Amino acid sequence: MSALTLRSSTTLARSTLLSKPLLCGCYSAYHPVASGSRSLSISTRRAIRSHEPKKSSLALRPEIKQREERAEGKIVGGEGKGVEGPHYQDQSTVASDILTNQSTTGAWTLMNPIYTESELDTVKVVGREPVTLADKSVHKLVKFLRKTFDFLTAYKDYKVPESILQQNPIPVAELRAKGLLLSHHKWLFRIILLESIAGVPGMVGGTLRHLRSMRLLRRDGGWIHTLLEEAENERMHLLTFMTIAQPTIFTRALVLAAQGVFYNAFFLTYLFSPKTAHRFVGALEEEAVRTYSHCIDDIEKGLVPEWNDVAAPRIAIDYWRLPSDAKLLDVIRAVRADEATHRFVNHSLANLDQKKDFNPFALVEADAATRGGKWGFTREESAEFAREQQKKLMEVSHQKRIEH
Amino acid sequence: MSALTLRSSTTLARSTLLSKPLLCGCYSAYHPVASGSRSLSISTRRAIRSHEPKKSSLALRPEIKQREERAEGKIVGGEGKGVEGPHYQDQSTVASDILTNQSTTGAWTLMNPIYTESELDTVKVVGREPVTLADKSVHKLVKFLRKTFDFLTAYKDYKVPESILQQNPIPVAELRAKGLLLSHHKWLFRIILLESIAGVPGMVGGTLRHLRSMRLLRRDGGWIHTLLEEAENERMHLLTFMTIAQPTIFTRALVLAAQGVFYNAFFLTYLFSPKTAHRFVGALEEEAVRTYSHCIDDIEKGLVPEWNDVAAPRIAIDYWRLPSDAKLLDVIRAVRADEATHRFVNHSLANLDQKKDFNPFALVEADAATRGGKWGFTREESAEFAREQQKKLMEVSHQKRIEH
Repeated sequence: MSALTLRSSTTLARSTLLSKPLLCGCYSAYHPVASGSRSLSISTRRAIRSHEPKKSSLALRPEIKQREERAEGKIVGGEGKGVEGPHYQDQSTVASDILTNQSTTGAWTLMNPIYTESELDTVKVVGREPVTLADKSVHKLVKFLRKTFDFLTAYKDYKVPESILQQNPIPVAELRAKGLLLSHHKWLFRIILLESIAGVPGMVGGTLRHLRSMRLLRRDGGWIHTLLEEAENERMHLLTFMTIAQPTIFTRALVLAAQGVFYNAFFLTYLFSPKTAHRFVGALEEEAVRTYSHCIDDIEKGLVPEWNDVAAPRIAIDYWRLPSDAKLLDVIRAVRADEATHRFVNHSLANLDQKKDFNPFALVEADAATRGGKWGFTREESAEFAREQQKKLMEVSHQKRIEH
Repeated sequence: MSALTLRSSTTLARSTLLSKPLLCGCYSAYHPVASGSRSLSISTRRAIRSHEPKKSSLALRPEIKQREERAEGKIVGGEGKGVEGPHYQDQSTVASDILTNQSTTGAWTLMNPIYTESELDTVKVVGREPVTLADKSVHKLVKFLRKTFDFLTAYKDYKVPESILQQNPIPVAELRAKGLLLSHHKWLFRIILLESIAGVPGMVGGTLRHLRSMRLLRRDGGWIHTLLEEAENERMHLLTFMTIAQPTIFTRALVLAAQGVFYNAFFLTYLFSPKTAHRFVGALEEEAVRTYSHCIDDIEKGLVPEWNDVAAPRIAIDYWRLPSDAKLLDVIRAVRADEATHRFVNHSLANLDQKKDFNPFALVEADAATRGGKWGFTREESAEFAREQQKKLMEVSHQKRIEH
């Protein structure tokens, strides 16, 4: 198949386009084709790339991704759209199969909350007053870690006075030089580092509860799934920001070291006192919401001019089902809402009997306004919530039975 | 509210019944009620229990479960049906919410394959011929472990001759005394022990890939979800069999020890050579399919008379969406089909480039007949499969776009 074939009739071209990149890019070692077919013009390649599945690399940084996607080597399953999960345009068919459970189709990602515009604004910076000694220790530890990290990364919780904000243009460079504002590079450094360890607690908690359920031959009560969702959600935050970040060797080394230390420390903590571990994560997420609120505030005030009009990364639009004209600011608002959810869930879980209680959020999350405005449920509130949800489910089930 | 209120009009009684057990059983410490209300007659309790959500204990053994469900203490979220996942009767509403992603409702369990009657029969005992040195070592290790375990548990792969099968009644007790057949106790011991370690590889693999993705700041390619599904699936097998098993202290001690050893050994293996780890699991699952096939064969021939007409446990009917008159035999067939799926997936994953390739089963599993009859995909077959699935998804997506 020569390059000429690609400029033939639309219908033929469409089917040829569908198979061409695969033949020339991916399977050349297995399906020998005439060498001439590999020399496609740039415009043809671009045409192919825009309409048909292109080879997807696992890398996130744009220049590495492009380099890998053009490389000759074969990657299994690489002809993806580069999205996590079925594309929202495919949603109605794929998901109806999931619905009827009559297919083998599943989802790449676990359930994650999808926010409406108003739900994104309901997130407040709230915290839980520590009660027990363990609470207080954990709370102090988080405050200390934050203070240290803020010091090392030159982060100041500085509220820009109205007078400066009204200047036109706002002297951003000057404020940054004084260390009163973070540049977008510094924001990304902070975010990447923190999100790379944020994905650890959920996975550790899920694993340990999974192992516990199996060795004690008891049910888990629905916790594992919620914890795994949290882990995946944090990893998706990281992957999202990685599409716009270019972390240096120094950042990468820090990420490695941080994971090595934190994974082991948290594993041991969860093994001996899961309640303390969940309290720690709750306190950590309180700080995360605080930080992201500061970030959002800065962006909205125009204090991070590089991010004024950046389009949301594709991976974020698919994951949070954002409108296609969403901005990076919307993504960060969604991320903050997720952190508020984790704050809520972990504080609520910490209030439960770690061995006996079911997870009140196993089937249904609390609504977004609750998750944004409260630090969590007390044990009694969790019980109440679980009972209400169960009642609703029963009522629906009864109605279905009556209808049939 | 006295006991008399419960015998009033049906509509009032229904709402009272809904709240009564909760007031008297669950929240007595928080909602003081007249002590007389706690003395419900046994028939009333039974009436309450059969129609309304009863308190669910985390225990699985029937007598422990009953004891915990009658106890006064409160368990958060305990008024469940005791199912894993939304009940299939609720499916149409809950799942349509998942479909539209406009609710906060999620699922308790990850996606698991649902089998039709014919799909349950397509599972064959197949194995992959080891190729590399690592393959051979792993293969030999599995054979050795199996031989040892069979010896220690007096398991013989004995094919009962036709002459004996035609006797009426079949001399089962005699054959068991000779050690040629396993009693149902011995079957359960074997199954419980093996399923308690079977849930480890998927979770370890998922965790390590999750951590790797985050510390190297790279995408995972869809593996994590599949591995977590496998782990949960194996745990569900264990929980299912736990509803009919009464493991002794000895069994429980063995389960603890086995997990301690296996978890660490597998963690290290996966850290240094994920390919070897997947190959090991594939070989292990080959043996699992062999064992379950033997078990099914025995049951069908009437060689395990205690299991001739046992109804399937509720948890199994909900999980595999079995018909409500399903038998334990159907459950074991479904379990065998799951093991064949894991055999298929792990051998296929072992054939991939562990660092670069996407998981071909990220969105869609191979169909049940393939999973039952082949040991797995080669790397080229995985690539082919992934490409086909992607094409189908794109076509559907295109059609949707055209329609709108």
